[in-house]
Amino acid sequence: MHRYRSHTCAALRSSDAGNPVRLSGWVHRVRDHGGLLFIDLRDHYGMTQCVVDPDSAAFADVEKVRSEWVVRIDGEVKPRAPEAVNSNLPTGEIEVFIREIEVLSSAKELPLPVFGEPDYPEEVRLRYRFLDLRRETLHANIAKRSRIVAEMRRLMNTAGFAEYSTPILTASSPEGARDFLVPSRLHPGKFFALPQAPQQYKQLLMVAGFDRYFQIAPCFRDEDPRADRLPGEFYQLDLEMSFVTQEDVWDTMTPVITQVFEQFAEGKPVTKDWPRIPYETAIRKYGSDKPDLRNPIEMQPVTEHFAGSGFKVFANQIAADDAVEVWAIPAPTGGSRAFCDRMNAWAQGQGQPGLGYIFFKEGQGSGPIAKNIGEERTAAIREQLGLSDGDAVFFVCGRPDKFYRFAGEARTRAGTELDLVDKDRFELCWIVDFPFYEWDEEEKRVDFAHNPFSMPQGGLEALNNADPLTLKAYQYDAVCNGYEIASGSIRNQEPETMLRAFELVGLSREDVESQFGGLYRAFQYGAPPHGGAAFGIDRIIMLLCGAENLREITPFPMNQQAEDLLMGAPSEPAPKQLRELHLRVNPPSK
Amino acid sequence: MHRYRSHTCAALRSSDAGNPVRLSGWVHRVRDHGGLLFIDLRDHYGMTQCVVDPDSAAFADVEKVRSEWVVRIDGEVKPRAPEAVNSNLPTGEIEVFIREIEVLSSAKELPLPVFGEPDYPEEVRLRYRFLDLRRETLHANIAKRSRIVAEMRRLMNTAGFAEYSTPILTASSPEGARDFLVPSRLHPGKFFALPQAPQQYKQLLMVAGFDRYFQIAPCFRDEDPRADRLPGEFYQLDLEMSFVTQEDVWDTMTPVITQVFEQFAEGKPVTKDWPRIPYETAIRKYGSDKPDLRNPIEMQPVTEHFAGSGFKVFANQIAADDAVEVWAIPAPTGGSRAFCDRMNAWAQGQGQPGLGYIFFKEGQGSGPIAKNIGEERTAAIREQLGLSDGDAVFFVCGRPDKFYRFAGEARTRAGTELDLVDKDRFELCWIVDFPFYEWDEEEKRVDFAHNPFSMPQGGLEALNNADPLTLKAYQYDAVCNGYEIASGSIRNQEPETMLRAFELVGLSREDVESQFGGLYRAFQYGAPPHGGAAFGIDRIIMLLCGAENLREITPFPMNQQAEDLLMGAPSEPAPKQLRELHLRVNPPSK
Repeated sequence: MHRYRSHTCAALRSSDAGNPVRLSGWVHRVRDHGGLLFIDLRDHYGMTQCVVDPDSAAFADVEKVRSEWVVRIDGEVKPRAPEAVNSNLPTGEIEVFIREIEVLSSAKELPLPVFGEPDYPEEVRLRYRFLDLRRETLHANIAKRSRIVAEMRRLMNTAGFAEYSTPILTASSPEGARDFLVPSRLHPGKFFALPQAPQQYKQLLMVAGFDRYFQIAPCFRDEDPRADRLPGEFYQLDLEMSFVTQEDVWDTMTPVITQVFEQFAEGKPVTKDWPRIPYETAIRKYGSDKPDLRNPIEMQPVTEHFAGSGFKVFANQIAADDAVEVWAIPAPTGGSRAFCDRMNAWAQGQGQPGLGYIFFKEGQGSGPIAKNIGEERTAAIREQLGLSDGDAVFFVCGRPDKFYRFAGEARTRAGTELDLVDKDRFELCWIVDFPFYEWDEEEKRVDFAHNPFSMPQGGLEALNNADPLTLKAYQYDAVCNGYEIASGSIRNQEPETMLRAFELVGLSREDVESQFGGLYRAFQYGAPPHGGAAFGIDRIIMLLCGAENLREITPFPMNQQAEDLLMGAPSEPAPKQLRELHLRVNPPSK
Repeated sequence: MHRYRSHTCAALRSSDAGNPVRLSGWVHRVRDHGGLLFIDLRDHYGMTQCVVDPDSAAFADVEKVRSEWVVRIDGEVKPRAPEAVNSNLPTGEIEVFIREIEVLSSAKELPLPVFGEPDYPEEVRLRYRFLDLRRETLHANIAKRSRIVAEMRRLMNTAGFAEYSTPILTASSPEGARDFLVPSRLHPGKFFALPQAPQQYKQLLMVAGFDRYFQIAPCFRDEDPRADRLPGEFYQLDLEMSFVTQEDVWDTMTPVITQVFEQFAEGKPVTKDWPRIPYETAIRKYGSDKPDLRNPIEMQPVTEHFAGSGFKVFANQIAADDAVEVWAIPAPTGGSRAFCDRMNAWAQGQGQPGLGYIFFKEGQGSGPIAKNIGEERTAAIREQLGLSDGDAVFFVCGRPDKFYRFAGEARTRAGTELDLVDKDRFELCWIVDFPFYEWDEEEKRVDFAHNPFSMPQGGLEALNNADPLTLKAYQYDAVCNGYEIASGSIRNQEPETMLRAFELVGLSREDVESQFGGLYRAFQYGAPPHGGAAFGIDRIIMLLCGAENLREITPFPMNQQAEDLLMGAPSEPAPKQLRELHLRVNPPSK
């Protein structure tokens, strides 16, 4: 028989009854039932109930073991009595009568219980992560994470992509977030940087002719702690394709990600045919470029119904400024004064003057606005929005670029409060046609709205002739349930177009050469049209695990102060290490 | 039709004749044959011959294109004339008559030609890596690398392992090679380290109950440049298993790695049933713990034949010191004075006094040693080694621990010079039972021979009672064709045994707690017996690609001065970056 086990703790069935077996695992818990001792023996695969009676020679040994000790048990499989069968457990039809038990490793008093996984302070959980990771929920999340990533790889390979690892010790990137730096010992005073993303390398792979690249890529950003991001490292499903349009990227990745979701959604419905929503439409319908499409509310412009109306607060604004619009946020089932007042109060709490509304009952619109604009306009609004008795509608008025975010929040709030959001589904979509440039109000100049490496729609000609702020990019996001899960674009691989795009944000040819030299140089030697995307793996896993916190889906996360409490990192280096790196620490003044 | 291509450059066959097609790719070369212009159009997948005649409207456009331009070609598939069929090319039965050509990206004068891949200086190749990577051999190596790694992953998944990513920003490791450090911005004066290997984390995963872990793991060592190692980062197939003996590790990994080799060996034979050779045997038979088993030479001790013999140089040493041995290195087909003298001269060039020999011809042993020891002893040596006329044997004498390396080199040299080594095969083996400790002559103390985390054979009892230098470890290497391709062990997961093992090399409990705290602490809370290995991916790929240099199998390597010439790393940081990190550069004095 094998030194440690003949079966895992998930393997035994009633057909094994009568067989001698050997199991190894952790003592999940010990129970004393009328003199009989029960051990729930746990390993990665499952749990098996083991039992010993006081007449057994092993009884005295079993009495000594405690939770989380590692033991080997030899015994015999017996069917449980019918009333003792546990149908929730794959091994629930049997138990193992213990003949012999060997302690492979004992445990000191546990700083963190495993059984029952009671709430415990985050710091204890991180310091004793090896215990935390034995707890059922976290253990299952980490195992699921591994399966999700493996499935991503399998699907990408099947879709004709090959994985190439790009360097982790690389050059500092002049844009984007803050780099982690790595001092070079051989070149005193010089530093490598850890990649924020393999963006430039994957584009270079395209220029080198590799056609379809992907990578489960570790990325690094030295950012200040944020609730929705772990300090340090995170993972992307990074991909790039040559000789493609943006439709090719969508057509390729939609089924891949849909399949990942379907396989791990545990039966929840997943969007198969992702809508492709222009950025402008998303803003106008949902007030967000990351719309949660589980929320059925779609906003509509209703400016005409307020222009020249008796509701002067809106009518005057509309008359004074052509850019002013009124948007309606329909709220099905929200047709009560109580709800409308709650929404209004919430809006005031958000720093807004309020949230105008009409609610419908007994065939009529109610509330101050309805009174002011009169029955005909009220009916026209109801007609346009398809509302009925028992529904409500809220209004925001002003320049859309100033209010759309708030309108989107109001839409979210109404949907959530009215329980219109079906939580048990995954709604996926592409947001497309992002603006290429945006106005930087602080610097009073045009800046890239997103990725400076993206191709502007219309190319060089549009850059030369159109108003920069009207340009769209071949730039897109993927969104799930209100979270951005990917971002991508068709790249600008034409050196002249690239120079012109940077020129418009004030960067010269010399700037481009010094800051993006590797890529700019490469584009001068035969660069294929190419594009791609990067999916946020951590976010996707969080969604699929139903986890609220990235630490619940990461095996060894740092805490919010960017410390690894388990391994004790960061730590002070030995003086010799600093000497070799030609560095001196210059402590901050207190 | 698609914007860029209806087919890849490897797709078209004679069955496509008559069809209009669209291809995109790089102009591999342009040839002018009697007025006709031929373009070999290349992409990642293959090559297609395209042709235009002077009557075509596209002729003038085709005339303008140059090597490595990226073009789109519309045209019609035509079968080649029988005498023009190229059977070496999958598309060799057809060519595409060009109707229209569009330049997608032109190229400046090439600093590095792609076609024909002529030798070029390493520096140019690295600076223009995007061109270098288009060259046939390197491009194929990198693509093969990706397939090999994907296959490793597939086989590991099939073998029941799950991949878990361990942190890249972690704690400095007190032993082993030099760490790369990463300054922490949030904790001035403190540093993270990049992992030399995920050793501690993978063991923690076992303690956390994950049972079978693997990872294609990036590892980092800040070493001085070495010919056989790239500066910076390298990759390991890292794995760990719980509740296993070392036999389980071998039984699990032998078929995985054998299959990887078989699939990518291009028909060369691969060892299926790897021999398991004790370290001591390997040293005595091959003079190396990394024996090249393609070399059929096996050494044997022949001390008895020299003890008390007339060859006083050896006989006196044997008489003076019980530890002295004479080893024979048989050299089949080496039986000529010329060859034996060449070997002798080589040995002197290695700083040895010489290399004694006997060669056999006409039924007799020849050479000075044969004369000195006489016919009977000469015949006994020949008998023992199974040598015949036309063969030779070389001798080394002394304390084996002093001469075994040289003996091993002589074995390699004889095998190579006599062409006894079958280069077209992969001979794999496990070297097992490595010593646990070794004598550190400089420090005059016992030190770990290999991995301090390994379990000594005999456990705590052996540590307490046996001579440390006689202890073996559950420690093993995998070797292919003379290269170490893996190293592994069963780990020491018992806190008391761990403390005792470190005590014998002079480290206290406090040292262990401060230096290996994460692991030492974990072992006190229920740690399963576990073990594993790490396979050197780069080395395996080099062997399978038949490459001589790691840069030939790495997409973006640094040069030997640890610089990335393509991206310009390392580089000087902005003063703001150093300020944020609270660091000051302290340049070395000249």
